[in-house]
Formats: sequence, structure tokens, C-alpha cells
Amino acid sequence: MTASRGSGPSQVQHVVTVRELGEFALIERINAGRKQAPGVLLGPGDDAAVVAAPEGRFVVTTDMLVQDRHFRLDWSSAQDIGRKAIAQNAADVVAMGATPSAFVVSLGCPSETSVEFVQALADGMWAEAERAGASIAGGDMVRSPFLVISVTAFGDPRRMLITRSGARAGDVVAVAGRLGWSGAGLAVLSAGAGTGPLAGEDTGPSTGADLGQFAGPDAGLFAEVVAAHKVPQPPYAAVLELPDTAEITALTDVSDGLLADLGHIAQSSGVAIDLDSAALHDPALEPVAKALDASPLDWILSGGEDHAFAATFADSGDLPQGWVPIGRVVTGSGVTVDGLPRTGPTGWESFA
Amino acid sequence: MTASRGSGPSQVQHVVTVRELGEFALIERINAGRKQAPGVLLGPGDDAAVVAAPEGRFVVTTDMLVQDRHFRLDWSSAQDIGRKAIAQNAADVVAMGATPSAFVVSLGCPSETSVEFVQALADGMWAEAERAGASIAGGDMVRSPFLVISVTAFGDPRRMLITRSGARAGDVVAVAGRLGWSGAGLAVLSAGAGTGPLAGEDTGPSTGADLGQFAGPDAGLFAEVVAAHKVPQPPYAAVLELPDTAEITALTDVSDGLLADLGHIAQSSGVAIDLDSAALHDPALEPVAKALDASPLDWILSGGEDHAFAATFADSGDLPQGWVPIGRVVTGSGVTVDGLPRTGPTGWESFA
Repeated sequence: MTASRGSGPSQVQHVVTVRELGEFALIERINAGRKQAPGVLLGPGDDAAVVAAPEGRFVVTTDMLVQDRHFRLDWSSAQDIGRKAIAQNAADVVAMGATPSAFVVSLGCPSETSVEFVQALADGMWAEAERAGASIAGGDMVRSPFLVISVTAFGDPRRMLITRSGARAGDVVAVAGRLGWSGAGLAVLSAGAGTGPLAGEDTGPSTGADLGQFAGPDAGLFAEVVAAHKVPQPPYAAVLELPDTAEITALTDVSDGLLADLGHIAQSSGVAIDLDSAALHDPALEPVAKALDASPLDWILSGGEDHAFAATFADSGDLPQGWVPIGRVVTGSGVTVDGLPRTGPTGWESFA
Repeated sequence: MTASRGSGPSQVQHVVTVRELGEFALIERINAGRKQAPGVLLGPGDDAAVVAAPEGRFVVTTDMLVQDRHFRLDWSSAQDIGRKAIAQNAADVVAMGATPSAFVVSLGCPSETSVEFVQALADGMWAEAERAGASIAGGDMVRSPFLVISVTAFGDPRRMLITRSGARAGDVVAVAGRLGWSGAGLAVLSAGAGTGPLAGEDTGPSTGADLGQFAGPDAGLFAEVVAAHKVPQPPYAAVLELPDTAEITALTDVSDGLLADLGHIAQSSGVAIDLDSAALHDPALEPVAKALDASPLDWILSGGEDHAFAATFADSGDLPQGWVPIGRVVTGSGVTVDGLPRTGPTGWESFA
């Protein structure tokens, strides 16, 4: 296959596709020069990989990302997509109180996908895996009519597991990381979408959608919320560096939306949670909300995909570094805001 | 959504779709009444599952199956597809000399997929997971334009890992399980394809393609090779019950094709392998080959997907139970048959 790029015939260049290179050479290419984390005892190249589990047990989580459902090639670069796929799985591992040790990745893509695109996707995955202290131990590559990415992540539970079921009435609800930024970024992209690079051709850092309408003094902020949507940056350290004295009772990551995810903690723990809207207020989101005539509180409560961490702590003094109080655990069931049920969007539902 | 099925208006029935039921209720439905294997310390319902790793390490492998690339809804029932997806991953775990402990599964499917279909898919997965001595610890469900299944499998290494790299000149090459049956079944299906049930409507045991042209005294055999293609039955016990005295030096499962998979052992071990075509001969495949004017040896050498096990053993006496000698490890590189390079099909290539 050849493809014409650039402004004239003199710039025609040959784009090598995965069909031309072949599965095995492609696997060799994207694994070349990678350095496995200490926990990966046997990497790619056999029937299976081998990962250390020094605690005698490991946590495992898996997520599937489908083109045009979970990412758009005209919005995100291959590197962005790779980083996001790893970040959202690493956040689930950390949300159990575990330290990421390894990932495995399956990729489905069309035969015409450029090798360059797959390489950039892998580079993004490796960058985020290393940021989380781990590496990519193996995977699978198959032909598919469009891009599908499946990531499975592993972690070593530190001290003890932190589940969703330990919250008790009287606990403080707190969050580490930004809320609503991903939702704001999605709203900006949705408003300005449509002029990005063609599918499979964008291999560098994000070029982004056409955000021309958001030029002006707040342009930097708009770019920042868009970046937050494309590549969430879970604050792993806020959990992994919790002091031994921290009386954390329940933990989750904010993936479906704060209300939905805290709803899981409330249900698993048999308690209710009441949030304080004033504590959730983020003045940085105001200019974006104003430009789009949107409610920043909707992004904060229901936007999801920030992969911040939400937790409950026994009410025994100051919260650990990086954690901000946003509400209280009380008796009952469900999640309220300022004592009232919340109407409006409630969070992500896969088949909606 | 309603859909009309059966022969008349009196048989109209309501087919509940995954969109109607919703992601969370669907997950609850397909997990209802399941019994987790002892190695699954925490099952579905939190940010991640927890799996035991009593050896302080675990093996992990992952495969993605894409509709119309790795399975066809007009050939295979949902149960068949579920069983195959688990079996091919369990075989990779066992091919490291490890005992399957758990699986996680991601499923992408259209919103209009029936709940019944997903339930049958899960039933097939659970049946094969239990046959392998394990269970399904968790997963993910997402919307996708067509079916995509990603399975990740875990296992506990018994005694020591059996990799692909330990074969030495003088070793005996042996196989456990049938070879060529899946390839024969695929050939039969390809010859008789096209009249199966509609996508998403087949939830029971296999109904299969129209095999009317293969009626007659060999009809049972044709049905058997088709079944072998739809649901491979890896002979897990041949590996997991190897006596401690067995001097097995390398092991893999036959997924891409015998020549391709033994080629991986030869390359990893820095040796050559010569196969004995007479030892590979399977008279049971002759009537199928004759009816289709095909070469049974092509199915045996290149068909793949049988998920038999191929191994090398030190030449120190009788082979363990269930293992049949098919060749020798010699010095050099590559795989030959009766001392000659093999022309013709060589095995599966993902992007071909």
C-alpha cells in the first residue's frame, strides 16, 4: 500500500501497513528496546508471560476501548489513546490500594493501519505504564474492522486491600485529583469537533480538534480541559503514598461519574453519602462552562473519566496530603448533594 | 425492542436486549449463581478482582476474538463461542506448565444484542473455565458495532515453567491431542456454509451450517470435525498430570498450526525439528479429505486451532501417557517433514 500525504507529488511517501509488515515482525518492532519492570519475570515471546506476585495474590482489572465509542481518531492521537487506555486500568488497580505491576494488551485493528500508528499507540501505553511504575508484559494483535483495545492490569496489594465496602456513617468523603475537567474537555471537543487528522494518520502528539472558536484569553484553559479528557492523569501517588496511619475505609476511582462511583461505595457499604456542592466548586471550570452555557457541577458530578480517586476516611483529624473533603458518610442509602437527591445526568451507561 | 420469531404471530415473543436491561443489571444477571474457584479471592463488584498466586508468581496470556474473523454467528452458537474463547486461553496457560486459576473477560457487543445471547456466551465460558479447573473473576462490557471478546487467563506454575526454549538435539517431539480436526471442520463449514441462524438469535447448542451435502455413512464424522472446529478441547490433563519424572524440555499449544508453533520452539531453542509424516497420519480424516478433495496433511501441519499440545522430551524411554511421538529435535534451524522443507500453507497470520 502507498498513500499520498502532504501538499504535492513530491511529498508522496510510503506508509507501511501492519499487513505488509506482518504480525510477528510488528510485535518484534513495538517491543524493541523496551525495559520490563522488575515484576515481569518473563515478557513477550512464549505462550504466556510470567508476573511476580510477592504478596501471594494479585489484583486484576480489565477494560475494553472501542473506536468512536471510547475514543475518536479525529480528537486523539495514537499516543493519547495508548496513554488513556493504560491510565484508566492503572487507576482501577490503585483504587484497590495496589501498586501496578504489569499490563497485557490486546489490539484489534484493520490491516491497513499504519505501523507508525501502532508504534505510537504502544509508545503511549509504555509511557503511562512506566508512569504507573509498571510495564507491558505481553498481548495479542488481531485483524478487526476498526480499532479495539483491551487492557488488563495487575497490581500488588500493599498492606491490605481497600475495597468499596468499608465506609461507615461518620466517615469523611474526600477526593484526590481533579473532577469535571474531562467532562469539560469532552464538551469543548463536542462543540468544536470535526477537523482533526484522518483515521490512522495521526501518530504524533495531540493536534486536537478545531478549537478556533475558543481562542482568546482562556485559550490555554480550553486546551487544558481538552488535554484532561484525552489523557487522564490519575494521581496514583495520593493512594500509593498514603501514610500507614491513614484510616481509609473505602476507595474507588472516578470513571463513570462521581455520583455513580460514590453510589457503588454507598451500596457496597450499606450507607448513604451526602456531598457538599460548595466543596466541589472549581472556579477554574467557570470560564469553560460560561462559554458553552453549561453547568460545571454536572461535569463534576457526572462527567466521569477524570480517574480521580474518591475515598472515605475515618473522621480522626487531618486528611492525608492530596485529599480534599467533599462530603460525609451518613446512615441510609444513595448519594445526595446538599441533602437533596440530584436530578439530571447520573453517569456513564455502556449500552445507552 | 420486540422481534418476531417462529412460524406465526402466535409465537411472537419479546427479546430483551442488553440496552433494555442495562450494563449493571446484565452483569448481575450473568454472574448470578456462579461459584468462584478457590483461587479467586475477590470476584466481580469492586474496582478489581483479587486472585491467589500461591507460587508468588502467575502466568498470564490474552487473546482477542473478533466476529467474522475468529468466529461466525451463522456457524457457532453463543455457547460454542464462549467455550472456544476460554479454551484457547486456557491452553496457553497450560502450555507454560501452569494450572489455570482464573479468567477475566471483556465483551463488546451491539446494544441490540439479546440478553439471552450474552447469557449463553457466559454459560459457555463458565463451562470451559470449570473444565479447566478455574472460574471467571470479572470483566468489562461495552458497546461495539459487532462482537469482540477479549479473554485474559491466569495460572499457577506447577513445579517449574515449561517454556519454548529448552529443546535439545536428540529430544523426541511428541503431541497430545488431535491435529487437523479443526482444519477439517473449517473446510467442511466453508463448503457448506450459509444457512445458519441469524446473528444474535442462536443461544442454544450448535445448530451448525447446512451439512446436507455431507449426509451418508460418514455424516457422524463430518459433524465431529465441525464440532472440533467450533469448540476445541485441549487435553489439559496430558500436561497437568505429567509425572514428576517426565523430562519435558519444551512445550507449546498448537494454535497457529503445527509447523508454525514448532517453528517457535525451534527458533527459541536454537535447534531444528524434523517431523515424520507417517506418525502424523490420521486415518479418521481420510473420508473428509476425500469428500473435499483436500490434503489431510495440510490440515494437520497448518490448520491450527486444535489446541493440542506439542512438546519435546529427553529421549529417555517411554513417553508419558497421552503423548504420541511425531518427530525428532536435530541440530540446525527450522522445521522439516521427512527431512524436507514443507511448501504450501504455513499457518495463521493475523493481518493476512
